[in-house]
Amino acid sequence: MKHNFGAGPGILPRKAIEKSAQAILDLNGTGLSILEISHRSKDFDAILAQTKSLVKELLNVPDNYSILFLQGGASTQFSMVPMNLLPVGGKAAYVESGVWASKAAKEAKLFGNVETVASSKDRNFCYVPTTYAIPSDASYLHITSNNTIYGTQMASFPESNIPVVCDMSSDIFSRPVDVSKFDLIYAGAQKNMGPAGVTLVIMKNDIHGKSGRAIPTMLDYKTHIENDSLFNTPPVFAIYVCMATLEWLKEIGGVSSIEKLNTQKANLLYSEIDSNPLFKGTADVDSRSKMNVCFLLEKPELDESFSALLKDNGVIGLKGHRSVGGYRASLYNALPISSVEFLVSLMQDFAKKNG
Amino acid sequence: MKHNFGAGPGILPRKAIEKSAQAILDLNGTGLSILEISHRSKDFDAILAQTKSLVKELLNVPDNYSILFLQGGASTQFSMVPMNLLPVGGKAAYVESGVWASKAAKEAKLFGNVETVASSKDRNFCYVPTTYAIPSDASYLHITSNNTIYGTQMASFPESNIPVVCDMSSDIFSRPVDVSKFDLIYAGAQKNMGPAGVTLVIMKNDIHGKSGRAIPTMLDYKTHIENDSLFNTPPVFAIYVCMATLEWLKEIGGVSSIEKLNTQKANLLYSEIDSNPLFKGTADVDSRSKMNVCFLLEKPELDESFSALLKDNGVIGLKGHRSVGGYRASLYNALPISSVEFLVSLMQDFAKKNG
Repeated sequence: MKHNFGAGPGILPRKAIEKSAQAILDLNGTGLSILEISHRSKDFDAILAQTKSLVKELLNVPDNYSILFLQGGASTQFSMVPMNLLPVGGKAAYVESGVWASKAAKEAKLFGNVETVASSKDRNFCYVPTTYAIPSDASYLHITSNNTIYGTQMASFPESNIPVVCDMSSDIFSRPVDVSKFDLIYAGAQKNMGPAGVTLVIMKNDIHGKSGRAIPTMLDYKTHIENDSLFNTPPVFAIYVCMATLEWLKEIGGVSSIEKLNTQKANLLYSEIDSNPLFKGTADVDSRSKMNVCFLLEKPELDESFSALLKDNGVIGLKGHRSVGGYRASLYNALPISSVEFLVSLMQDFAKKNG
Repeated sequence: MKHNFGAGPGILPRKAIEKSAQAILDLNGTGLSILEISHRSKDFDAILAQTKSLVKELLNVPDNYSILFLQGGASTQFSMVPMNLLPVGGKAAYVESGVWASKAAKEAKLFGNVETVASSKDRNFCYVPTTYAIPSDASYLHITSNNTIYGTQMASFPESNIPVVCDMSSDIFSRPVDVSKFDLIYAGAQKNMGPAGVTLVIMKNDIHGKSGRAIPTMLDYKTHIENDSLFNTPPVFAIYVCMATLEWLKEIGGVSSIEKLNTQKANLLYSEIDSNPLFKGTADVDSRSKMNVCFLLEKPELDESFSALLKDNGVIGLKGHRSVGGYRASLYNALPISSVEFLVSLMQDFAKKNG
């Protein structure tokens, strides 16, 4: 077994993995693989309904919201959001808290005016902007709750008088959120929810259809709301793995319980980074993410030696993104605290040898 | 075990299913699940390269073509094709051979003028149009090689002086095709290639970038060509299953071998339909598909009894599409001839009892 700190696709609960492997060999004793059943079958109807129900229950999604399972990742949502929500000639507000947020804004510029209301680009996105005015004439405010690359996370969400759209790809299901404060939430599944290949969209039912533009059928939220994510063949197996992962999350107590565990894991690692003389964190303390912990060695010449130590001990996925360098430990829901304890022990050993 | 005649997601080779289940538990002894590895890892690099290589080898794809693995199904290609290939103010030619072909044409109308050069709608798409003029001033001709719902298939492809775009979702890898005759081929994987959740695009490298319109990044073929399908997180596991399925296809002799087997399977079933007094085919004989065999009972009052016989014998997925009714037996690559023999024996028994 490895200690998997990968940034995504990331570690999933072993129970969900084993259930998924079994469903590939034989789904519920049907004599069929989950890979070869019809998306119009009763078996899949039950899987889709159960997955939706778990999303609704775990995040306490209000009744006037739709829960959709789409394809194309958050990157496709970057264009679907303005295509559907930004009227011709209109304006949208974007908070630029990282490269992914910038990419989202770039797509919106194809469809209207974009006002960047705040940016942390001045210091390589090492903090989350918190002080900014939200233009009342914008159609929506777009934010990114967690910035995987830089290890920053919104501790709280902005109060807004305009609709809020949030990319929660890398921290959804890691903590309770008040869904009613958002008009649209989207998330690629491949961090806390499931495997690559499916994208969750949670949106108010009445917000689409007002852009005044002709939208290709597959890119129109209306299509997927009206067809309950079954307009065309959905990614059947990816949805199944989400179901199995969310079942596990529910069993261990849901988002409140996992938030406590995630906080413990993050505190353990940040406190080692802060107390160990060989390491330093890269994100501002008040912007630190509980999902992705970014840090550097004080002496870059020790990089090779520390990387080798990690590798020799089966600790993987810690290489930082090239735009930050150093190390990034992703502490997604399924990562056990024992893996964090093990990493911390390696850091302590490393300090003893190289202190 | 069931005899799976489902129209898609359809039956896959057992060997590919077992290999995929093993990769979920432990990918190549890495101690990691295929579901939790990075799409930037060496492990996935090898999987993607191997899958591309198998597509190239099995279909003899020329060097000046790109092989892409996208998301969103053929339905997303319906709009990506005109968005990328139909210049502003231009015209595209469509052959309307079924509802999916109509849906493709509908999306193109959002981007330019569409000339329907032929249609078989007059007889509920029970044949493939073969006699039509291809306008030389159109940017491309769009065809559908196999019409799943109606059980019709192009026996040969039109000679065209303009670029040809083909939706091969339901018969790709079932027979040899001369890829060089096409500018772009697309196919949802969930029939002969793999599971739902990935879409294969095979396209000439130089055909994009001429539409004169601004295209959202994820919908621009250029993005995926330049990033080798890794602009964003691809559907890692779906690609793995495609690899395992194509490895199986190569082992059994490739598309020439499978074409022979598919022809045997189709001949066996069509000849029973034609000789058994209780059944009749719905597609014109010269348009019959080797992938999807559509037929009716001569006496509709026997429907319930025949359906029960199928169910009692583990023969599944035979219900015809609502727009045709009756039965549809899909004979995809992975369906063994023994399943067809078994179905034929049931039809013969049924005739004896009800003749």
